[in-house]
This record gives sequence, C-alpha cells and structure tokens, in this order.
Amino acid sequence: MKARIKVTLKTGVLDPQGKAIKNALGALGFEGVEDVRQGKFIEVELDQSDPEAAKTEVDRMCRDLLANMVIEDYDFEIEAA
Amino acid sequence: MKARIKVTLKTGVLDPQGKAIKNALGALGFEGVEDVRQGKFIEVELDQSDPEAAKTEVDRMCRDLLANMVIEDYDFEIEAA
Repeated sequence: MKARIKVTLKTGVLDPQGKAIKNALGALGFEGVEDVRQGKFIEVELDQSDPEAAKTEVDRMCRDLLANMVIEDYDFEIEAA
Repeated sequence: MKARIKVTLKTGVLDPQGKAIKNALGALGFEGVEDVRQGKFIEVELDQSDPEAAKTEVDRMCRDLLANMVIEDYDFEIEAA
C-alpha cells in the first residue's frame, strides 16, 4: 500500500517560505496571488495489505515523526499498491 | 480559487530526505516501510474565478518557479474557494 501524506502548517502559524514564494511569484509577473502556504508531501510505501491497519500505522507515523503537532496538521490517503 | 500543488522528485532521482525519514521510522519501530519519498506541498490562493484560467496560470507557476523540471514533477488540483 502507498500512503500519501500532506503536512501543512496550522492556520495562524507564520509561513516565511510561503511568503517568499508569494513574493517571487509577484516578481515574476503573476498577479492576483493572495496567499501561499508551503507544506510537505510524503509518500510512504508500506508492506501491509490491510487498509485499516495501514491507516492506523500511518496515523502513528504522522504523530510520532512526520508532523510537529504543535504547529502542523496532517492529512493522508491510503492507496492500494 | 485555491490550487493544491504537489511537487515530487522524478523516479530515479536520489532522495536523501526520504531515506532519512525511512531510517527514522525504522528506528522508531515501524516495520515494513519499503520506501519513503519526500516532496513539497504548496497551496496557492488565487484571485481568479475562471477555473480554466486558474489552471493555465498555476501550470505556468509550476514550470517557472515551483518545480525544478530537471529533477521534479508536479501535479495540482484547483478548488473553487
């Protein structure tokens, strides 16, 4: 199974990387960009055939390592390989 | 409109960050992790009401700034605000 995980900053947490991208897009002539937020995208290939077990495992991975729960949120989907 | 963009390394490009995550997961006791790839996730808020125009614009943003086309692929979806 493959898990596709998105880790994003919680609302209200400053995002200097996103701000830099927004400024760079403006400098390149893109108008109408109101906000940019940058997060992480992580793909995990699991040796696990049970979707429910995979879900539980990935959720624990996110909490234990992949996301900093103080400032980040995560979301993921599981896809059969 | 909001664009959700995923930027991932092309197949075959070495991913030391992903490898580090894989090792860390192993050290934390997660078994059966076969591969990990890390990419970027970028949300862009656009002042644009036409989905087709938004699509064209975000595609150009990806090519011009957000993805390094030599080593990265991108994929995005547009969502009405």
